[in-house]
Amino acid sequence: MTSNFEGVDLVTIRDFSRDQIEHVMNLAEKMIPIALGEERSDLLSSHLLGSLFFEPSTRTRLSFASAMARLGGITLGFDQPLGASIQKGETLADTIKMVDAYTDVIVLRHSAEGSARLAAHFAEKPIINAGDGAGQHPTQTILDLFTIRKAKGKIGDINVALVGDLKYGRTVHSLAEALALFGAKLMFVAPKTLQMPKETVRAVEKLGAKPAMLTTIEESLAEADIMYVTRIQKERFPDLAEYQKVSGEFKINNALLKDAKPELKIMHPLPRVDEIQAEVDSTDHALYFQQAFNGVPVRMAILSLILGAKS
Amino acid sequence: MTSNFEGVDLVTIRDFSRDQIEHVMNLAEKMIPIALGEERSDLLSSHLLGSLFFEPSTRTRLSFASAMARLGGITLGFDQPLGASIQKGETLADTIKMVDAYTDVIVLRHSAEGSARLAAHFAEKPIINAGDGAGQHPTQTILDLFTIRKAKGKIGDINVALVGDLKYGRTVHSLAEALALFGAKLMFVAPKTLQMPKETVRAVEKLGAKPAMLTTIEESLAEADIMYVTRIQKERFPDLAEYQKVSGEFKINNALLKDAKPELKIMHPLPRVDEIQAEVDSTDHALYFQQAFNGVPVRMAILSLILGAKS
Amino acid sequence: MTSNFEGVDLVTIRDFSRDQIEHVMNLAEKMIPIALGEERSDLLSSHLLGSLFFEPSTRTRLSFASAMARLGGITLGFDQPLGASIQKGETLADTIKMVDAYTDVIVLRHSAEGSARLAAHFAEKPIINAGDGAGQHPTQTILDLFTIRKAKGKIGDINVALVGDLKYGRTVHSLAEALALFGAKLMFVAPKTLQMPKETVRAVEKLGAKPAMLTTIEESLAEADIMYVTRIQKERFPDLAEYQKVSGEFKINNALLKDAKPELKIMHPLPRVDEIQAEVDSTDHALYFQQAFNGVPVRMAILSLILGAKS
Repeated sequence: MTSNFEGVDLVTIRDFSRDQIEHVMNLAEKMIPIALGEERSDLLSSHLLGSLFFEPSTRTRLSFASAMARLGGITLGFDQPLGASIQKGETLADTIKMVDAYTDVIVLRHSAEGSARLAAHFAEKPIINAGDGAGQHPTQTILDLFTIRKAKGKIGDINVALVGDLKYGRTVHSLAEALALFGAKLMFVAPKTLQMPKETVRAVEKLGAKPAMLTTIEESLAEADIMYVTRIQKERFPDLAEYQKVSGEFKINNALLKDAKPELKIMHPLPRVDEIQAEVDSTDHALYFQQAFNGVPVRMAILSLILGAKS
Repeated sequence: MTSNFEGVDLVTIRDFSRDQIEHVMNLAEKMIPIALGEERSDLLSSHLLGSLFFEPSTRTRLSFASAMARLGGITLGFDQPLGASIQKGETLADTIKMVDAYTDVIVLRHSAEGSARLAAHFAEKPIINAGDGAGQHPTQTILDLFTIRKAKGKIGDINVALVGDLKYGRTVHSLAEALALFGAKLMFVAPKTLQMPKETVRAVEKLGAKPAMLTTIEESLAEADIMYVTRIQKERFPDLAEYQKVSGEFKINNALLKDAKPELKIMHPLPRVDEIQAEVDSTDHALYFQQAFNGVPVRMAILSLILGAKS
Repeated sequence: MTSNFEGVDLVTIRDFSRDQIEHVMNLAEKMIPIALGEERSDLLSSHLLGSLFFEPSTRTRLSFASAMARLGGITLGFDQPLGASIQKGETLADTIKMVDAYTDVIVLRHSAEGSARLAAHFAEKPIINAGDGAGQHPTQTILDLFTIRKAKGKIGDINVALVGDLKYGRTVHSLAEALALFGAKLMFVAPKTLQMPKETVRAVEKLGAKPAMLTTIEESLAEADIMYVTRIQKERFPDLAEYQKVSGEFKINNALLKDAKPELKIMHPLPRVDEIQAEVDSTDHALYFQQAFNGVPVRMAILSLILGAKS
């Protein structure tokens, strides 16, 4: 039975089947009027979310808090690791057991890969991974899928170009796999040194995808229905000149987009710096602010399902 | 129609007419029993305030949070710019658009003058300016007017001495204009180098006021009904000796107040350091703690009106 | 009448009589299903807690926030002294008067001994001391008593070993007195330089206790029903070698516990570092996580009583 999410952990996107992801997206769709404040709900009243951000992530943290609040629930926790317990050398396991005793569900952001799995081991309450180092960020993946489905009516058979830092970019690895699971056609567009890791390429091929490996955005423009852009970080390059050349080539602006399909939609997990120029914001291509909003109904759906709340 | 505030931004006090300010004050008056916790309200239940403090301001931040909570609403946000987004170089516009998608109204405190106007440009939801650099802090102005009206029964024809740093003090510029709008008689009491800027003097004269420019508190004592004190900051003076002389002359204590009207009320936006001595707190002159409390009912009124909540 | 707590301050455990502590514990017992999220309550809806943590204490802060939330109340405040007011040199008295105007009850954590008593002097609303320097932390004491009573069915006639740093450990001084008040038998187990201060020894003797003063955990093992462990901090020792010897001897592990009563329960105020080894967590001796949870129902009871909420 796909709809029984009560009490489950969401550590990686692989914890959910395709049917389960569809179920979340269908419920998220229904949550939109509540997320917009047009309808009221107390579905999660008396429910407490422990929000543990060991590293800052304003967007993820506030969208979870908004999702709880829109459903009448309450959020407590911390947004940086300044607590006495952590300063005094408390282990993550002990911190998790504490919050486990004070709340009904825990969202965890931590710099160490594997910390969400460890937390899930020690907590009785469900753990939602909001990013653990180079690891997963599954609610981001689901909101990305939801955004594509909402914009295009489907995910299968859509041409999706993943653009930018595909080697270190956390979100694109799990997104690539999830897109393959849903039958999307993939283009991996990155500087050679920042291409998609082999494990991810193999994983999507196993799911039937045949990703095109491209080195310039221009090559992807004619076919792309969705362009998912991630930031290229200076610290990935030993040579500053090389960084400047590459980052210049991977900037999206209106001139570049003249060769794109009119219905191309551009996504970005945000925050951005300058990899999408502000002039793009007012075009029909810009989908990234809608995408950020979609974090709220998707997280409302996930929280409701995991908490077993009945509407 | 003066009472339609729904969806409007409050960036400067000039955004509101005298009639509108009176309307806010009348509603604030009715909010007092709820602000005191004597009556319950769920007027703003299901409403979300985005509370974005890019620089700390405990009093303003907590009074907005209290105002929301007293009306059943929820506050989320940050109290210092430590979020990943901002660290990563996100623009204010992008941060505002994010919170715009997660909440119903945004209160913004920022060190850069003009940031509230910029935020209002990018946000669909209403923006309340809680201080932007040398710019405005309009909810402070309204709570100051409200405090005078409550203490004296009226604002027009009251003698109000603005005392201290009138050059750099943010609150006194807009307060001076608002007082002139309501017909108060003004005294500007400041060291010569910290007197009221010419633009503000001209603005109040245009509104019919004839401010007295004074250099010592003593000169204002015989007539003042209200003395509004602001702090003189050391960093405004190139010469430490000059600072010590001036700040010593602008300290309020009980000895000084012997020559004041018995019904003189002293106000201060707080926090204070030593410009009002603690011995004054227990006299009938002290109005500043009542003034701080008044921030709650006034902000309750403003939030309710801007959110279009019907009681 | 022992049950009238409305409006009282809780600065030290001596503010409450034995009857009053029993009353709190009885109410805490009834709060457990709500603390677990199994039952809903809006006993404290429309009530505001001002949560002022001038130094961080994640466990205490979050358990108060959870206690308020479980009863429908709202928490606002700060978790570190970064507010503008404090940076600008505002006195504690002025900060307290501000929050007094914005909330219904204040919980205060501060590094300076005596700060809670000072706050109680300036606030009209009740103050709950959540630790002031070397001073008291009375809600911790009550939750410790509650934990013992729940585990053993009674407090009187129980053998309780207080172990570790008894000289500087804040929690053990007031706990020792409270245990004596309830008729527990006491063992003080500490390195000679960190033994219980004479004033506390005298205070418990005055209450009829005859504490055994021991220097090794082994000596207490045969009789102890409860072992309450606190951390020995490196900075207490001028000599590193001495610290290493002592802290090694005061570590609890499963090998040591072979000589303990089977029904021995181990408590710790948490956070711990390594003074209780993780292997103990899965034994029946471990009571410290249950103890941490008990902070929620005990604080629910205290908040309800002090706020005069009727269930």
